Amino acid sequence: MSVLDPPLAVRWLRDLAELTGDDDGAQRVAWTDTWMTAREWFRARLDEIPGVEVHTDPAGNVWATLPGESERSVVVGGHIDSVPDGGWLDGALNVIAALAVMRAVAAGPRPPLTLRLVEWADEEGARFGRSLVGSSAAAGTLDPESLRGLRDRDGVALPDALQARGVELGRMLEAGAELDGVAAYLELHIEQGPVLESIDRPLGVVTGVFGLQRHVVVARGAHAHAGATPMHLRRDAFLTAARTALAARDAAAAGTDVRATTGTVSVSPGIVTAFNGVCEISLDQRALDADVLAGMVADARAASEAIAAEEGCTVEWIPQFAQEPVYFAPPLVEMAAEVIAELTGGEAPRLPSGPLHDAAEMARVVPSVMVFVRSIGGVSHTKDEDSSEADIELSVRAMHELTLRTLAWAEGAS
Amino acid sequence: MSVLDPPLAVRWLRDLAELTGDDDGAQRVAWTDTWMTAREWFRARLDEIPGVEVHTDPAGNVWATLPGESERSVVVGGHIDSVPDGGWLDGALNVIAALAVMRAVAAGPRPPLTLRLVEWADEEGARFGRSLVGSSAAAGTLDPESLRGLRDRDGVALPDALQARGVELGRMLEAGAELDGVAAYLELHIEQGPVLESIDRPLGVVTGVFGLQRHVVVARGAHAHAGATPMHLRRDAFLTAARTALAARDAAAAGTDVRATTGTVSVSPGIVTAFNGVCEISLDQRALDADVLAGMVADARAASEAIAAEEGCTVEWIPQFAQEPVYFAPPLVEMAAEVIAELTGGEAPRLPSGPLHDAAEMARVVPSVMVFVRSIGGVSHTKDEDSSEADIELSVRAMHELTLRTLAWAEGAS
Repeated sequence: MSVLDPPLAVRWLRDLAELTGDDDGAQRVAWTDTWMTAREWFRARLDEIPGVEVHTDPAGNVWATLPGESERSVVVGGHIDSVPDGGWLDGALNVIAALAVMRAVAAGPRPPLTLRLVEWADEEGARFGRSLVGSSAAAGTLDPESLRGLRDRDGVALPDALQARGVELGRMLEAGAELDGVAAYLELHIEQGPVLESIDRPLGVVTGVFGLQRHVVVARGAHAHAGATPMHLRRDAFLTAARTALAARDAAAAGTDVRATTGTVSVSPGIVTAFNGVCEISLDQRALDADVLAGMVADARAASEAIAAEEGCTVEWIPQFAQEPVYFAPPLVEMAAEVIAELTGGEAPRLPSGPLHDAAEMARVVPSVMVFVRSIGGVSHTKDEDSSEADIELSVRAMHELTLRTLAWAEGAS
Repeated sequence: MSVLDPPLAVRWLRDLAELTGDDDGAQRVAWTDTWMTAREWFRARLDEIPGVEVHTDPAGNVWATLPGESERSVVVGGHIDSVPDGGWLDGALNVIAALAVMRAVAAGPRPPLTLRLVEWADEEGARFGRSLVGSSAAAGTLDPESLRGLRDRDGVALPDALQARGVELGRMLEAGAELDGVAAYLELHIEQGPVLESIDRPLGVVTGVFGLQRHVVVARGAHAHAGATPMHLRRDAFLTAARTALAARDAAAAGTDVRATTGTVSVSPGIVTAFNGVCEISLDQRALDADVLAGMVADARAASEAIAAEEGCTVEWIPQFAQEPVYFAPPLVEMAAEVIAELTGGEAPRLPSGPLHDAAEMARVVPSVMVFVRSIGGVSHTKDEDSSEADIELSVRAMHELTLRTLAWAEGAS
């Protein structure tokens, strides 16, 4: 008999929101007092489950362990930190769901493998600008030295803020030892996008995380007077950049699992009586397939150079950031799809993740998968973020069933 | 025998630049000490011409009068003030050329009409943000009360700055009396644009000054995450505005005497990881024909609304500023064209003015015309502004000849 209690998970989320949020939303920014309040509250809930051991690793991640017949383990996890003025579900839903799953499994027979819960430190990177801190330390992809110079808006150095929470920069990679014997990693998250809502489905299985290339594109022409310069003699950097942004969208029109986004835009001189001699835009291009991504970037770049030549301008593409796509483990993707299909009726939606998640770090070193639950209006990183209670409860059920099947699958694979 | 001395005009311009400029360019900002230094230097040059009376009117404009057979007069004018870090020719060339013309006419027989020179106060509006101050006061189009609240960057109120130079706000419109008996107004100016250079011609006659409509166009959609939101579900305000800017250019493609310029561009939230929910652009549209201008604005607006509908966005057009076109007097335009044709060989280029000039104010109340001299690189309002000495000397010859013919024309028309 399962004691899985999805409505309790919703109540927990409401309690946490009340304890650590305000009128502007969730305030559980990593390394702050409010985050510690959230962690203490969460620790108290873990302590209510008989037989669970809890400790914090050298990167500040909290691990709860429910021993099974084998020391090999399945990990269910997420993060309790939020952005400032954040939503009640990102990412608390994943650790609350994991808590509900662990509570249910603990009430049943001893599981074949050990079940573990991880609450990652500083997924959002909201205070110091580096996201996925705890999970990348565990995965071994973090360079702790790259964090040393980071400061928050008040000038507090990251090493000092971490030390105040018992984390030594030089020892963070020791968190990797936590992954010894981990057979699988599972994570639930709100979608933070409009896809599931647009197809009217509550849950989806995530197939991977987009690869990404981010550039600053600088168009250069020559500014001059809005009245004095005939149209055919202009070298207008803004119009060159505007056409480049549209060409980048065109280059992303072919596929469904692709994105192209112009985010920042700045012009010079930026006055009403002159066209612009310089325009800088950010261009963020993403795809689940590395070759598709490379093709999109090449197409947009070639188009921008042709546009610039037509406009009497030049364009320069300055690389800012690049990341390879991450693919989740096919057996776990299929298992999650089966669970979702059974719980919701009809084939499970399969979708990539645009945003990064701790699961993307785990997927580098452990078979991993994510489940998305429908977001209302597709919004996130705001207090307006929401999902229906029915969807939340359904997502807890899905994670419970997926955990049980993953434990059985990992036992068979041992 | 003419004593017109065009090389002397160039030397005067060099002297003035040395006296009132620095390494960053001309510093003859209206109402400042440096402007007064320039005016005193100019007054000394006027005093070297026998028979010339000089006075300042209630708006701060300086008038020099060389009496003729009739009290009716032809006025040649311009402004000696500059923007900060301005060029050596805008507008000093016009008053220096007028000085050279007056010196030559004074050395000859008494002219049929009185010849007057005006050096307008504060054409640029660089210090208080209101341009054409002196000429609009004389034309009666200035509302002095609209100036009362203006302050410079140091907090100095415009009425105080003017009073320090002997100008009372409440009496400025009395300058209109200066225009009694004025038969024509002539003004030389650097082109400040690339047209004459692009057709390899030193001088052109100006047919009028563009009408203008300036709007802020606000595109509104909804911002969301660059990774999470598929392309077909986006409502991207920046791309809507980008397409609007291109449509405004398309709406200006039909004619040669039209302009469309996007100058300021701002996006919100303006971060690399989101497309934008709001984008504001300034749109400055100009044409020499009022109906053409109205058509351009209507076309661009209709196009922007269709684009917004396609993009799932809205657009709002907020009027900022509008001005009717000004046409110069056809007999004076023809006379200037004849002079230019004779001096340069070949038909005179005819072109509209994009920027405003004091002559646009004069044209409302007096038959007026302008001559443009070729600018190198089309630049202005910078120390890099330049025209060749040969072109400058030619422009002085043209103004001399045009003045003589205008005196004769006005005598015949009396």
